[in-house]
Formats: sequence, structure tokens, C-alpha cells
Amino acid sequence: MEKRRLYMDYSATTPVKKEVLDEMMPYFTENFGNASSFHTFGREAKTALDKARGQVANLINAKPNEIYFTAGGTESDNWAIEGVAFAHRSKGNHIITSKIEHHGVLHICEYLEKHHGFEVTYLDVDAEGRVKLDELEKAIKDTTILISIMFANNEIGTIQPIKEIGEIAKKHNVLFHTDAVQAAGNVPIDVKELNVDLMSMSSHKIYGPKGIGALYIKTGTKLHSFVHGGAQERRRRAGTENMPSIVGYGKAAELAKTNMDEHIERLTSLRTKLIDGILEKIPYTRVNGSLEDRLPGNVNFSFEFIEGEGILLMLDMLGIAASSGSACTSGSLDPSHVLMAIGLPHEIAHGSLRLSIGDFTTEDDIDYIIEKLPAVIERLRMMSPLYDAVIKQK
Amino acid sequence: MEKRRLYMDYSATTPVKKEVLDEMMPYFTENFGNASSFHTFGREAKTALDKARGQVANLINAKPNEIYFTAGGTESDNWAIEGVAFAHRSKGNHIITSKIEHHGVLHICEYLEKHHGFEVTYLDVDAEGRVKLDELEKAIKDTTILISIMFANNEIGTIQPIKEIGEIAKKHNVLFHTDAVQAAGNVPIDVKELNVDLMSMSSHKIYGPKGIGALYIKTGTKLHSFVHGGAQERRRRAGTENMPSIVGYGKAAELAKTNMDEHIERLTSLRTKLIDGILEKIPYTRVNGSLEDRLPGNVNFSFEFIEGEGILLMLDMLGIAASSGSACTSGSLDPSHVLMAIGLPHEIAHGSLRLSIGDFTTEDDIDYIIEKLPAVIERLRMMSPLYDAVIKQK
Ligand SMILES: Cc1ncc(COP(=O)(O)O)c(C=O)c1O
Ligand SMILES: Cc1ncc(COP(=O)(O)O)c(C=O)c1O
Repeated sequence: MEKRRLYMDYSATTPVKKEVLDEMMPYFTENFGNASSFHTFGREAKTALDKARGQVANLINAKPNEIYFTAGGTESDNWAIEGVAFAHRSKGNHIITSKIEHHGVLHICEYLEKHHGFEVTYLDVDAEGRVKLDELEKAIKDTTILISIMFANNEIGTIQPIKEIGEIAKKHNVLFHTDAVQAAGNVPIDVKELNVDLMSMSSHKIYGPKGIGALYIKTGTKLHSFVHGGAQERRRRAGTENMPSIVGYGKAAELAKTNMDEHIERLTSLRTKLIDGILEKIPYTRVNGSLEDRLPGNVNFSFEFIEGEGILLMLDMLGIAASSGSACTSGSLDPSHVLMAIGLPHEIAHGSLRLSIGDFTTEDDIDYIIEKLPAVIERLRMMSPLYDAVIKQK
Repeated sequence: MEKRRLYMDYSATTPVKKEVLDEMMPYFTENFGNASSFHTFGREAKTALDKARGQVANLINAKPNEIYFTAGGTESDNWAIEGVAFAHRSKGNHIITSKIEHHGVLHICEYLEKHHGFEVTYLDVDAEGRVKLDELEKAIKDTTILISIMFANNEIGTIQPIKEIGEIAKKHNVLFHTDAVQAAGNVPIDVKELNVDLMSMSSHKIYGPKGIGALYIKTGTKLHSFVHGGAQERRRRAGTENMPSIVGYGKAAELAKTNMDEHIERLTSLRTKLIDGILEKIPYTRVNGSLEDRLPGNVNFSFEFIEGEGILLMLDMLGIAASSGSACTSGSLDPSHVLMAIGLPHEIAHGSLRLSIGDFTTEDDIDYIIEKLPAVIERLRMMSPLYDAVIKQK
């Protein structure tokens, strides 16, 4: 029997869809020109570049010239934050963000604090992972130049009140950046309805290729460039355009937009089935994050008395690929900063599991997990002295 | 008759070789895991990542852990220069570079000058585009923290005396970065023999995919990270690893290393044929750059009395894709900063043409150009009042 390859880690990355790869193919070998070149090869590339920019813009209802391609979500986050920080230094040095941001936001903030004289407020969140609007507003001072709050969390799936945050930012005349890497393509976004000045996006979370993303920059927003060099991206982001990947990202954005309703409905239904199935079968389990404002594909459990690494290992042996936190920090022994921020005690945060559902996940996959996971958890708990004590107490 | 598609712009970008694309393919759809993930999909990616790092390291005789993948040559240049500048600020604020660097170097230097209090010396070059070693040494002061001189120029192909520059840098205890985007893969490089601390490379110049490059960082070299976030690239360059492109770059590097001698011999012979053929047939023509220390595939002519744009246009109509300067600045009306720096008068710099030869260029292609170009130049000259005067004078 062939080993199952059940991928339940769509929040870490997704496979490239066939339609996407098909669009990309000619740009590797045939229409391989440099989009900045003057000749036919160059013009072919330029045409494809413009088309893709339109497709990505359309995903979030932006104007095409508000979309700047980058090498991914992390670069977009870094660009937005460092770019605003350095460009608005004369106004102030204070940035507000939250404790549950992706490291692409947190670490550039820490870098700016440590080496460039900026001051950063890291807001607490509530038990479901939501920023508290009153605390946000109270944190704003004369020197505040930027608020950066993520659209949806990559670990627990909670969607923030972005519109309300945007209103607060606008009221106080502070720029607002949101990391929408998990959200853009997975839930509807209309930048015209939100007071968002900058928004980070990434292709490989929505069935496009890795190594390509975008920063939405609202017309008129002042920020420094992050990568300096050639005149690409209207002189704001240098480097030879990554044409095959840009074309792929464009197609992925188009597909995401077209299939949005169906995508959300399917994933939400699989998610509900998985959550209900597991909560019914496995005691001492909690679901992390909001149940109402949640990414369609995100499931995050904490199983008491055990360690996430053990779960991952045993699931992997069953052919199930899952995650215990964000992929970028796996290998680290610290519990997830997100789970700590929503108030989970250390030992419970440790026993957490993210199962993320995507477009290739089937009902059968969910059934398989509901069938297999209880025995995995039970076996690990059997080895736990804490669990032993609980059982004996009963 | 189908229109010819004769690509003579390999210095701007290259097509992806079939062997390279074949290696990449599984990483889009099958082995699409995130290299930072704990499970089987992640480990597959990690294995491929390590292999590619070894291949790129091998190209320049570096250790694998001295190779850091980036999104391309421009990012590598920016990282090296900004990273060193910010990390060594307490020692000094002075950077030395040359007037003929790629914009990926020049514009980050200008940015650091304008916004971050650094001071940059832009060295003159000789008539062939070589940095003068005595002037370089004289430019070093107590506050000098970095020398950044490119390995080979993208417009005129001149290869710098990198070993000698490295020795000067070492003698004065100054870090040395070289932009080897055009060189690494086209000419042999052994970092163990050069006193190079940092070296920028890019995949799309050597038949690998666009949007991926590397920075060589010699063990022990202190610099700030450029992209902050997840723990990828041993915590020095954040962002989900661009696996298909990394795998492709690895393969391209391997091919370049294996075929180096043959590549150099073939291209050099085609180059000689092209230069000789054109010089014989077209009067008032000069070859820019060094004839001895030159990239194998680079040809750069200046034709008196005419404008580069006109040549490009007419060549494009004949199906020949060429360049008048670096692709990143096309669209601009200024003459190339490189041609100005080697001392060409404004009007001669304007009439320049870069024809860059690559692995798919044939003898027949060269014959076609030698056949067609003279009439193109003659026709353009016919429209030039200056040429008219010269002819009448005779
Ligand atoms: C919320 C969030 N922000 C940023 C990133 C970084 O994106 P990328 O991997 O494209 O650099 C990720 C995923 O890794 C993410 O989930
Ligand atoms: C010498 C040189 N440096 C840097 C670059 C920039 O590399 P990339 O296009 O990969 O950003 C190029 C090419 O565009 C180049 O020729």
C-alpha cells in the first residue's frame, strides 16, 4: 500500500494549481524576456506584467498602479514598515502593532527599535486573538506614524476588525498597514471600503508560486523604497521582474477571486466537520481562535497534557502533514507567541496542532483525520504523568 | 516566412534551460512543501534546498553555509551594502564604489547618503572601464567600512582586477563586496583565492529562473539582515524559501560549472567573429570595454553619428533583440552612466549597442547580424546631418 500523502498545512504553503502552472510555463523558455527591455521579447513580458498586475489588483479592488510586486509576504511586510518608518521619521518614531503578528512584522519592528531609534507598542489581544480597539486608540500618541495589524492570523485564523482599525487610524491621521498574507485570496477584501494604506500579500498561500508577493500602496502614500536599483515597478521596487512567478500569481489571484464564494463555503464546511468531529471524540481539547471571524481553512486545537511535536511526528507517520505553529519557527522549542498572547498557559500552548484545509482537501481526508487523531492523542497522553494523575483522580 | 526571433540580449536575461526547468517542475505541484515545515513535505523541500545550496557554493568554491538565497542580484547588492553600512556605523560611515556599478549598487549607496548619513566615494575608471588601483587605495580613510566594486560590467563586459582590489581591502582592514551578477557562472570564480567578503549573484543571467539569487557571505562577516522575519537561511534572510526557483538556480549553477570551459571557448569565438565582422564592415565604429579582460558573451559597439534607440528599433524589426544600455534604464533618455564614465562623449555614448551572446547563439546568428547590421547603421547615418557633413568633407 502506498503511503498516504494527506496535506493539512495549506496555511504554511499551497501547491501550485495546474491552471496557474500552465500560464507560467511559456515565460520560462519562450517568452523569457526582461520586462524592462525595449525589444519584442521585452514587450511580451511587459504585456504579461500589466495583465498580472490587473489580476492582483482586482482581487482586492485596488487600482493596478497601487500594486507593487515583491518577493513575498515577508518582503512586503518589511517594506511597508521600514519604508514608512524611515520616510516619516521627522514626524515621529512610534509604531503600533500587536503581539500576534507574523515574524515578518514583529522582527522588522524589533530591528527598528534596536538599531534605528524607533519605539514600538505591541498590543495585547483578547482570548480569541482580537486587538482591543479601545487599547489601540489609547496607544496612539503624537509621535505615532504607523499602525500595523494583521488581517487574519496564520496560526489561529482570527480575522481582525480591519475596518474599525482603519477608521481609528484615519481619525488620528496615522498610516495603517495590514499583513493580509493569509487573507488576500481566502476571504473577500475591498480596499476601497477599508482605510488601509498598505497591505501585504503573498502568492504561495493561494495556489500560486513561492517567492512572489505584492504590496498594495494606496495612491499618495509616502514611503521609502526597500530595494533600490533599476527602474522596475515604477521606480519603487528594483530588480528584474520575476515574470513566470508574476504571471502565476496573477492567475492564482484571478482564480481566487472567481472561486471565492465556493472556496469559502467548501472550506468552512470541512472545517466545521473537522472541529465537531474532534471535539466530540477527544476530551480535554479546545479550539483556539474565534469561531465567528475565522479564516475558512484554519483549525487550531490545543490538546491538554501533551506536546505538539509528538503529535506532528505521529501524524507524519500516518501520512498527515500538519503544523504546530507557524512553519517559520518550527525547530524552535518556545511555544507559539500567538498562543501565549491569547492567554494559554505554557503547557497547553505546547500541545497545540494546526490543521489547515485547502482546495484539494476532501471529505474523505477529514474522515481519515477524525478516525486517526483520537488514537494518536490517546497514545501520547498515556505517556504523560499529568494525564495519569487526571485519570486516577476521576 | 516566420519572423526570426534572434535573441542577442543574454546579459539582460537568459531563457531557462530545459534541464533546469525539468528539475524545478516537481517542486511546484508535488514536492511543494515549505522547507521550514516539520513533516515529510517539508523535509523533501529541505533536502532539495541543501542540495541547491551546495551547487551554488560549488560554482564559486564557497562553503555551502556561506551561500544565502535572495530574490535576485539587486537584493543581494542592497543587502551587502546596507547590511554592512548599518552594522559598522560605529566604526565609520564611508563607502567606496565606482561610477560604473549597476544601479543595484549605485542607488542603494545614494539612498544611504541621502537618508542615513553615509558618505560615498564613486571612483573614476579608465578608458576600458577598469578601476584604478592607486586611486582606490588613496580613497580609503579611517572611516571607510566597505569597498564595493563589481566583478564584471553588464554593459561593456570589462572584468575588474578583483584579486588586487581584495588585497588592498584586506591590507586596510575594509570589507570588500563585489557584484558578480554578470560574472558568476560566466567566468571561473574561486572565492578562496580572492579576498572577497561578500559577493552578489543572480540566477536569471545563467539560464536559471528569474527572481532568485544569492549573496555569498564569507564566514565571520558581520552585517545586518536585510529582510527580517522567519528563521529561514539560518536567521539571516526571512521569507518562505522559493523552492522551485532555488532548485532551478542550483541546477543552473551546476551546469555552468560543468560547462564552463566549453561555454567560454564557444562564446569568445562567436564574440571575436562578431567584433571582427562588424569592425570590418562598418566604419566610424568603436568597441567599448577591454578586449582582454572581458565577459565571453559581451559585445558593445559605439556607432558614430546615430542614436541607440533607432538601431534597436530597426534591429527589432529584423527580429534581432539587442540592448542599448542596461535593461533597467531603458526608457530613459540619458546616455548610459557606464559609457560616460569611460569617457565617451555624449553623442557617441548615445549611438551604442550591446549585443550579448549566449549558449543558444549560433554561427548562423552571427552571420545574420554581420549581414544585416551594416545596412541598418548606414540607413540611420543617412538621416544624420553630422554624417552628411563628414561624407561631404571627404
Ligand atoms: C500572516 C503572514 N504574514 C507573512 C508571511 C510571510 O509570507 P512569505 O512566506 O511569502 O514571505 C506569512 C507566511 O509565511 C504569513 O502567514
Ligand atoms: C551587474 C549587475 N548587477 C545587478 C543586477 C541585478 O540583478 P537582478 O536583475 O537579478 O536583480 C544585474 C542585472 O540586472 C547586473 O547586470
